[in-house]
Amino acid sequence: MVDTVLSSKTREVVIGPNRPFVIIGERINPTGRKLLAAEMKEGNLERVKQDAVAQVEAGAQVLDVNAGIPLVDEPALLAEAIQLVQSLVDVPVSIDSSVVEALERGLEVAQGKPLLNSITGEEERLERLLPLVKKYGCAFIGISNDETGISEDPDVRFAVAKKIVERAMDYGIPKEDVIIDPLVMPIGAMPSAGRSVFKILRRCQEELGVNTTCGASNISFGLPNRPVLNGTFLAMAIANGLTCAITNPIEPEIKRSIMAADVFMGNDENCLRWIRAQQAESGDAMPQRRERRSRRPRREG
Amino acid sequence: MVDTVLSSKTREVVIGPNRPFVIIGERINPTGRKLLAAEMKEGNLERVKQDAVAQVEAGAQVLDVNAGIPLVDEPALLAEAIQLVQSLVDVPVSIDSSVVEALERGLEVAQGKPLLNSITGEEERLERLLPLVKKYGCAFIGISNDETGISEDPDVRFAVAKKIVERAMDYGIPKEDVIIDPLVMPIGAMPSAGRSVFKILRRCQEELGVNTTCGASNISFGLPNRPVLNGTFLAMAIANGLTCAITNPIEPEIKRSIMAADVFMGNDENCLRWIRAQQAESGDAMPQRRERRSRRPRREG
Repeated sequence: MVDTVLSSKTREVVIGPNRPFVIIGERINPTGRKLLAAEMKEGNLERVKQDAVAQVEAGAQVLDVNAGIPLVDEPALLAEAIQLVQSLVDVPVSIDSSVVEALERGLEVAQGKPLLNSITGEEERLERLLPLVKKYGCAFIGISNDETGISEDPDVRFAVAKKIVERAMDYGIPKEDVIIDPLVMPIGAMPSAGRSVFKILRRCQEELGVNTTCGASNISFGLPNRPVLNGTFLAMAIANGLTCAITNPIEPEIKRSIMAADVFMGNDENCLRWIRAQQAESGDAMPQRRERRSRRPRREG
Repeated sequence: MVDTVLSSKTREVVIGPNRPFVIIGERINPTGRKLLAAEMKEGNLERVKQDAVAQVEAGAQVLDVNAGIPLVDEPALLAEAIQLVQSLVDVPVSIDSSVVEALERGLEVAQGKPLLNSITGEEERLERLLPLVKKYGCAFIGISNDETGISEDPDVRFAVAKKIVERAMDYGIPKEDVIIDPLVMPIGAMPSAGRSVFKILRRCQEELGVNTTCGASNISFGLPNRPVLNGTFLAMAIANGLTCAITNPIEPEIKRSIMAADVFMGNDENCLRWIRAQQAESGDAMPQRRERRSRRPRREG
């Protein structure tokens, strides 16, 4: 069992199979959010502030920060957003960019031990970014695609994941600092997308002994009632070993599904987090006595 | 991949890993339902009729029928209830009793090919009931406990499941007519209950190639917001190979979770059942055009 430790200035967050599931808040990302993109482009980061606070209040333990907007100085904007976020909330950040210079600026300014999001299995990316991971002692998300694209075959995607873990270790990066993203494709376009992810997650846990994450929202692209789909998908992925995800804790269906999954993985001691959350939802401020009847299943008798 | 075929007088229901999940309606069971028990004891089966129709309308494809009430002539009452149910709805029945004579009477009166619920791994039960299964050509639920009780060790429970499948085959019963129930214990009393079930389900699929079922409600015994817990648990179990369950399709959270799980297992072609169900829930009678945008995930770009 491998634990990945991230940190902010003063707090540690541990990701691992015997720990409560870690939510990496996805909201601070202009991709697909026109208004946020327009504001960030003008240097207005008010919505970033709100998103940071709201997500942490809703249960995010890490915040993803992305500033990928066309025609902006992404390294500068990403650094500014990271510093702003960490001045407001005491959580580790996930530095999210496809631009190497932006990732490097993010690493320079982030407090504690951040997560680098992300490194694919492409040779050029590995050789360029792994030295940075080593230099800054951060953790990183390894994405299971390479020069040949995203394979539909889960065994090919697993092989890419394995290569990333092995290459990281060649650079002296411990495997607990690698979190594999199996790549979630839209189920509406690819009916095998769910089963593929479940298989890769299981193999990552059983054969590589590394933590796993995913950008869960992609799965429901184009379908109705996405929060219920995303929440159900996350629970199914957790049952196959997923230990953290980049998702939206503000959606009640997603949060509830993750909390229930923690219960069934045995990662919510005495089910107390579940019980308290239900009390809070029902507006019951009084501590509710647990039932004292013996808990024999119906079948047993 | 193994398909279990059940039938009513005119209709077949097929349970298998590449099929939509099959809900076996749990409601016609006086255990824990005082009013139903009192009525059934007096020979009043009005509520049984209502439960039969309502569950089938809500999506149950098989109905469990149990008449286990102290001090009643259980064989006669069970037979009467089964005949009543099958006169109202055209679905296979699951004949549910711990009394051999009641199971036998049920088999005598049931139309089509029913499911016998259940046979444990106890020698005396196996030797008494497997000949009945063979004689009537039904399918049966094999429960993974034996004379020594219910083990907390999933490998011991799996060994019992394996013994049941092998013994059935000794009697000339094909393994597709065996559906294993891994036994679901309350998670509030046993934190390992979820992971144990997931492990047994996976082994039953991978090593035995048989279908699996469970009485899903036990998992949430004593905890608040049981429908969400039960629905989430079912989705997680489906992600580990569960192919049918004895549960309550009338609970919207359970039904929705199962439908979403079918989507992610690739068992809802073009996601059409999901899309139609969402339209029905939102009261939208018009067929909604699917989005035509290309379905690339955010990550890819």
